[in-house]
Amino acid sequence: METVNQLLDSIKDVGRDAMRGGYSRAAYSTPELELRHWFIEQAQQRGLDVETDRNGIIWAWWGKPQDGALVTGSHLDSVPGGGAFDGPLGIASALAAVDILKTRGLDSKNTGPHRSLAITVFPEEEGSRFGVACLGSRLLTGAIAVDKALNLRDVDGNTFADVARGNRLDPRRVGRDPEAIARIGDFVELHVEQGKGLGHGGPAIAVGSSILGHGRWKLSVSGQGNHAGTTLMADRADPMVAAAQIVVAVRDTAARQPDARATVGRLTPVPGGTNVIASRVDLWLDARHPDDAVTAQLISAIYGVAREIAASEGCAVTLTEESYSGTVHFDPGLSRRIGELLPGAPVLATGAGHDAGVLAGHVPSAMLFVRNPSGISHSPEEYVADEDTAAGAIALADVLEGLL
Amino acid sequence: METVNQLLDSIKDVGRDAMRGGYSRAAYSTPELELRHWFIEQAQQRGLDVETDRNGIIWAWWGKPQDGALVTGSHLDSVPGGGAFDGPLGIASALAAVDILKTRGLDSKNTGPHRSLAITVFPEEEGSRFGVACLGSRLLTGAIAVDKALNLRDVDGNTFADVARGNRLDPRRVGRDPEAIARIGDFVELHVEQGKGLGHGGPAIAVGSSILGHGRWKLSVSGQGNHAGTTLMADRADPMVAAAQIVVAVRDTAARQPDARATVGRLTPVPGGTNVIASRVDLWLDARHPDDAVTAQLISAIYGVAREIAASEGCAVTLTEESYSGTVHFDPGLSRRIGELLPGAPVLATGAGHDAGVLAGHVPSAMLFVRNPSGISHSPEEYVADEDTAAGAIALADVLEGLL
Repeated sequence: METVNQLLDSIKDVGRDAMRGGYSRAAYSTPELELRHWFIEQAQQRGLDVETDRNGIIWAWWGKPQDGALVTGSHLDSVPGGGAFDGPLGIASALAAVDILKTRGLDSKNTGPHRSLAITVFPEEEGSRFGVACLGSRLLTGAIAVDKALNLRDVDGNTFADVARGNRLDPRRVGRDPEAIARIGDFVELHVEQGKGLGHGGPAIAVGSSILGHGRWKLSVSGQGNHAGTTLMADRADPMVAAAQIVVAVRDTAARQPDARATVGRLTPVPGGTNVIASRVDLWLDARHPDDAVTAQLISAIYGVAREIAASEGCAVTLTEESYSGTVHFDPGLSRRIGELLPGAPVLATGAGHDAGVLAGHVPSAMLFVRNPSGISHSPEEYVADEDTAAGAIALADVLEGLL
Repeated sequence: METVNQLLDSIKDVGRDAMRGGYSRAAYSTPELELRHWFIEQAQQRGLDVETDRNGIIWAWWGKPQDGALVTGSHLDSVPGGGAFDGPLGIASALAAVDILKTRGLDSKNTGPHRSLAITVFPEEEGSRFGVACLGSRLLTGAIAVDKALNLRDVDGNTFADVARGNRLDPRRVGRDPEAIARIGDFVELHVEQGKGLGHGGPAIAVGSSILGHGRWKLSVSGQGNHAGTTLMADRADPMVAAAQIVVAVRDTAARQPDARATVGRLTPVPGGTNVIASRVDLWLDARHPDDAVTAQLISAIYGVAREIAASEGCAVTLTEESYSGTVHFDPGLSRRIGELLPGAPVLATGAGHDAGVLAGHVPSAMLFVRNPSGISHSPEEYVADEDTAAGAIALADVLEGLL
């Protein structure tokens, strides 16, 4: 029996990023594969039966695989330079919850609980490698077209099909998997809280109510590549100058719209030389709002301003939607039962996307959030106190016990 | 005997960049090493004796190595996604000029010209790998401290010392080389023109007068890395938004200053995830002006505005000078003699840096420019017409013959 802290401690050196700080554990990278292997070992040590499905999702079964099982899980991949908790906290808490349930005598006959329980690990939740967040659960549920998914490329130009093949997945068998979905009777994901919803002194655990609608768009600004020394300022069509104004316009447009969030966190000048006026700048826009119609208006407004800016700099701009997920409200019945199992737990909406949000359109899904006092996430500074990780495992165990 | 076009044609497939277009031939990368090998073979086929000095500069001698020789040369490395001519045109023209001089009977006894001639290939002229332009000539002349040079790093974290060692250079022997400098009696570099100084219809070749003072500075903007979905717009300290305003301020500040050029062509958000508010953004500033004092004022003004912008976004900014070279005027005596050898050739200043500019502080140096009608350079669109490359080789042969 290990605590969540002990489990997280055993992977604390995997995928550290010396340049960015924190962890870089991209899907199917060496560190993420090491974490997947670690999870399989941990599950097997607990007597769980492990299988990897045709979309690369790992299932660790306590009891026989069966339709309508209770499933809990999260992910092991990270954003570049991410924190220690986003993803692995849900996996480590699930393993610890199984330990707790065993000490409570839930498996006195050593044959598994009467309703089977599975822990799942979803690949590419962050979308940091192939650009589409929750790629594993989107494939499982058919929320992304198989062709589109197989042709996604990472920064090195590898397609998802190549990487899948390299990880013993058959690209022809990737995609919607109704048999796997049927096995999920209820899905519960425990996750580190990523806002300031749980303050000091109050409860450490919250029940999720909804996930903010969110999407990703790519803007490509093209101009005239040239020499930085010989090209007069007046003769330039510099896409970096246009892209920079677009970044500011993104912030200003979102700031004027209540409840909207819009971010440019990734931007790549091409060719990217110090003494070279760029010929193209690619930037990625992450935008979120509770109302899908408002998000559409926001993107339209940003694209309109971007076109004006580009034209005024002698440049051109294109916009491509890479992914979109509308606002998700978790299953009211399941959330109410969880609320009864965790009396006093506040109910929180989240601005972050999760596999539970993708699954929510197909099976009753819910989330638990564990306090992160600063609210900082997707950063090495993401933090959960030891006593709160312990409280999270107990809360998850209470919920699973009540639902089994 | 090969023409410049035939020579360039024989390397047209080396280092093509499928992502950026054009060529990416970073110093000591596989393509640049292939070009160095190609040059050595070409020189040996012409009976030249080849040696690589302790700074990685290749010398191909026509006649015995001797002090006060006539030296011509350029570079084979490129910016990322650069054109076919920037660098290789000077090398191919030098090889073709030797062929032309042989047909003129300059080496009738097959013992070399009475004044020895060397063709030199300088490594890392663009500074695209280690950040300091003209690294080879700077090391040769002592214009960069050896310790600083050895500790320069490429994007993969390799130091120049490591890369030098991997290319059979002894890092302890890198640096100022008075014996090699003494061998250069006069230095002439032929280069593709990188502005619009030579228009249609007029002469195809110009004589260089001066190189604009230029330098590189790194600005690091730091803020609060966080989650793009859960962090309210009002709670952000986003260094990307600050960096974007700095990019615009760089352009605006330079545009207000007559004869100034300032460019941000390289910018890297850290960690660089789509769903991550960056914690830091690094950007590189290339700035140039004929008057060193004005350049200093320009940088000071940009840094002042950058600090104000950063503060207004809850961020901080630092500025580091990576390299600086004051305005260089080429040797008047040598330029006058070249002007007499090329009657009617216009005299042009250039905004681009060159090894000839670094050498000019130590030995009489001069440049020839070959017409590039659009003026576009550091881009796949850089272009020299076939008849102009031929005219360049003849002009270089005329100049070398007159100086031998």
